[in-house]
Amino acid sequence: MTMPVPPVQRSLEPLGTAVPSTVPSHWYNLAADLPEPMPPHLHPGTREPVGPDDLAPLFPQALIAQEVTAERYVEIPQTIREIYAMWRPSPLVRAERLERALGTPARIYYKYEGVSPAGSHKPNTAIAQAYYNAIEGTTTLTTETGAGQWGASLSLAGALLGLDVEVWQVRASYDSKPYRRLQMQVYGGICHSSPSDLTEAGRAILASDPDTTGSLGMAISEAVEAAAKNPKAHYSLGSVLNHVLLHQSVIGQEALVQFAEVESGAPDVIFGCAGGGSNLAGLTFPFLGQNLREGTSTRLVACEPAACPSLTQGEYRYDHGDVAGLTPLMKMHTLGKDFVPPAIHAGGLRYHGMAPMVSHAVNLGLMEAVAVEQTDAFRAGVEFARAEGIIPAPESTHAVAAAIAHARAATTDEVIVLGLSGNGVLDLPAYDEYV
Amino acid sequence: MTMPVPPVQRSLEPLGTAVPSTVPSHWYNLAADLPEPMPPHLHPGTREPVGPDDLAPLFPQALIAQEVTAERYVEIPQTIREIYAMWRPSPLVRAERLERALGTPARIYYKYEGVSPAGSHKPNTAIAQAYYNAIEGTTTLTTETGAGQWGASLSLAGALLGLDVEVWQVRASYDSKPYRRLQMQVYGGICHSSPSDLTEAGRAILASDPDTTGSLGMAISEAVEAAAKNPKAHYSLGSVLNHVLLHQSVIGQEALVQFAEVESGAPDVIFGCAGGGSNLAGLTFPFLGQNLREGTSTRLVACEPAACPSLTQGEYRYDHGDVAGLTPLMKMHTLGKDFVPPAIHAGGLRYHGMAPMVSHAVNLGLMEAVAVEQTDAFRAGVEFARAEGIIPAPESTHAVAAAIAHARAATTDEVIVLGLSGNGVLDLPAYDEYV
Repeated sequence: MTMPVPPVQRSLEPLGTAVPSTVPSHWYNLAADLPEPMPPHLHPGTREPVGPDDLAPLFPQALIAQEVTAERYVEIPQTIREIYAMWRPSPLVRAERLERALGTPARIYYKYEGVSPAGSHKPNTAIAQAYYNAIEGTTTLTTETGAGQWGASLSLAGALLGLDVEVWQVRASYDSKPYRRLQMQVYGGICHSSPSDLTEAGRAILASDPDTTGSLGMAISEAVEAAAKNPKAHYSLGSVLNHVLLHQSVIGQEALVQFAEVESGAPDVIFGCAGGGSNLAGLTFPFLGQNLREGTSTRLVACEPAACPSLTQGEYRYDHGDVAGLTPLMKMHTLGKDFVPPAIHAGGLRYHGMAPMVSHAVNLGLMEAVAVEQTDAFRAGVEFARAEGIIPAPESTHAVAAAIAHARAATTDEVIVLGLSGNGVLDLPAYDEYV
Repeated sequence: MTMPVPPVQRSLEPLGTAVPSTVPSHWYNLAADLPEPMPPHLHPGTREPVGPDDLAPLFPQALIAQEVTAERYVEIPQTIREIYAMWRPSPLVRAERLERALGTPARIYYKYEGVSPAGSHKPNTAIAQAYYNAIEGTTTLTTETGAGQWGASLSLAGALLGLDVEVWQVRASYDSKPYRRLQMQVYGGICHSSPSDLTEAGRAILASDPDTTGSLGMAISEAVEAAAKNPKAHYSLGSVLNHVLLHQSVIGQEALVQFAEVESGAPDVIFGCAGGGSNLAGLTFPFLGQNLREGTSTRLVACEPAACPSLTQGEYRYDHGDVAGLTPLMKMHTLGKDFVPPAIHAGGLRYHGMAPMVSHAVNLGLMEAVAVEQTDAFRAGVEFARAEGIIPAPESTHAVAAAIAHARAATTDEVIVLGLSGNGVLDLPAYDEYV
């Protein structure tokens, strides 16, 4: 009985709006500053380095080029910058109420990505991926999602740039978080529970384990298969890959400038939560580049869940990104592609591997990693909410917990930066057991 | 098995942070500019105008004074301004993507209150009410809530300013929107379904109608009774009263300044959604004051739900604010205190009356009112989300619908301002039937 929303004219043309200079004009690529080059991705059949032709069924040429580029800075197209300007620059906020509550001499800043319309950092790459796909003629994007932040963000990007979006959501999250599915639907996205009976990969998993809670690895297999079978469709990944980390660098690029306006020198330490690694890399890589080029010594700490500890417990080796083995082999810290993490509350961190570029940086000793227990994470999230007003995303609470522990132990006025990758309003059931 | 969050030191003292000049220093009081004075509130027993002593069991002296002040501008204490600065000034945004989608020659701006930590305009008064209570020694605040935005906002204020908060939530919302209760709990608030068996008013209602879906009028009776019985407790109301509208004037005060930076002259028309009236008044009264003092002619339009049409269908007469008749009598547009609105999706608009100051302004012909059908409201909300990224609160969609209809019919480049009172991420189930 409801009337349809009238179709509207979308355009890839910029509006022509003046974008503030505080919105970055370029993405930053850590590969240009690494002391050793990245190990290449390998073809899953031949185990030779993948070339552009191998990736063409999944990605547009522009993103394939970004995946391997050695340029330090990649220009951001005007259409993307205008959309970024809807919520960027995101704020870098001094957490003075939290400092007062903790009684710490440290100064704590948080870089808050929850101001995006989808509530997390994910639109930074969703908008870019949708744009490059649309200009190359893709009409449909397929993807996986865990907690739903990525699926919602890609659906938002599809609405703004005129693409159809089809999402496979990990069953554990699909069942426990119906609000996320509704968010995707309001933006016009289509959402399936994964594993589904819509793909060969999904049917095979269901046949062997009908009661599985699903995993990101399984959902990726389904979305990749669906894209490969539709010539007008491409696949879109919300983390892990180099081009995704590149797009997320707007976070740290902004933070570098914002930090210099309020503090002298570089931060002493930066904490970011780590699932696939894109939020962590987005915030920290521009500071790591500063360490490598200018000799600053900011400590960079990846905060991962103790229940899914790819950096602190996984092996550093070649592995697939998905369960079915459809993706290229990537050298990364991994718990093994068949690892099914427990249904921890931070659904966005339930991934068996870690971004190859983050893994490489940790392996070279350029970054550190810590594992955070779930209870500690939620306690920190509640403390943060009651002091700063914002309820952190369950993923973000891992960084909040590490930062609070560090601040409590601080005896000097050191400066901490904390990545608050999103807000937790659509993940409030995760807080239920805690409160 | 969870560890409690450690108690922290709250303080009513300002941090001493420099607050940007873009955060208003004073609230604006329309009463100073009205061509005829407001009819007084009456004592429910004597029907004589209420005095400060009558209100002292419910409110602190500072708020009682604000309820009847004739001052045009009331200074905002530094502690409140510092908290406002956590999210204020809220943005006034040109909706260029929506304009392009509609193909309208009109220019549309939205003033977006969803950037507050609670996601709506409600913290503007929650912070102020908690502050004045705390400095006068109140330790507990009681209140009612409909959709939950107000209860969450007062819980946030309690967390930031060190007060216990107890909320009676209308049963229809309590049952259908568990996320809001969790939001209150993360902030440390306690939430009861109303009617409850905790108060005489609640027990009486349950005895006569055990299956009632509840109403704001019932929940107010419960919260007022609970406050009156506890000498350290006061009651807090999220809309309707003059002092609440006063605090919300920061919305329109900011919008006046922001508008002047991007357009010459005054807006042609402003649309705001109207439940109790505080969001509408907060945005429009500063513009109405400009009309009255400076001769501008901005049209001001209250957008209410067709299912609860107090302004367009109610009588303008003295009525109680609650079902049990515990509150003063107020002269307002009312559907009658015993009116139980249908369980419409915009829970925040389910109130039988309208703020006396809004009612008075409408009665004097200074404002207009329109009733919006629910289906039209949600269609407009989806259109807005797909063009501008933000999913509007169900309440706000009433203003969005009226603005979109106006823009579609526009033949000249008139300028529309739209009050987007909050985001709808915690109200996504309300969109479910539509998408």
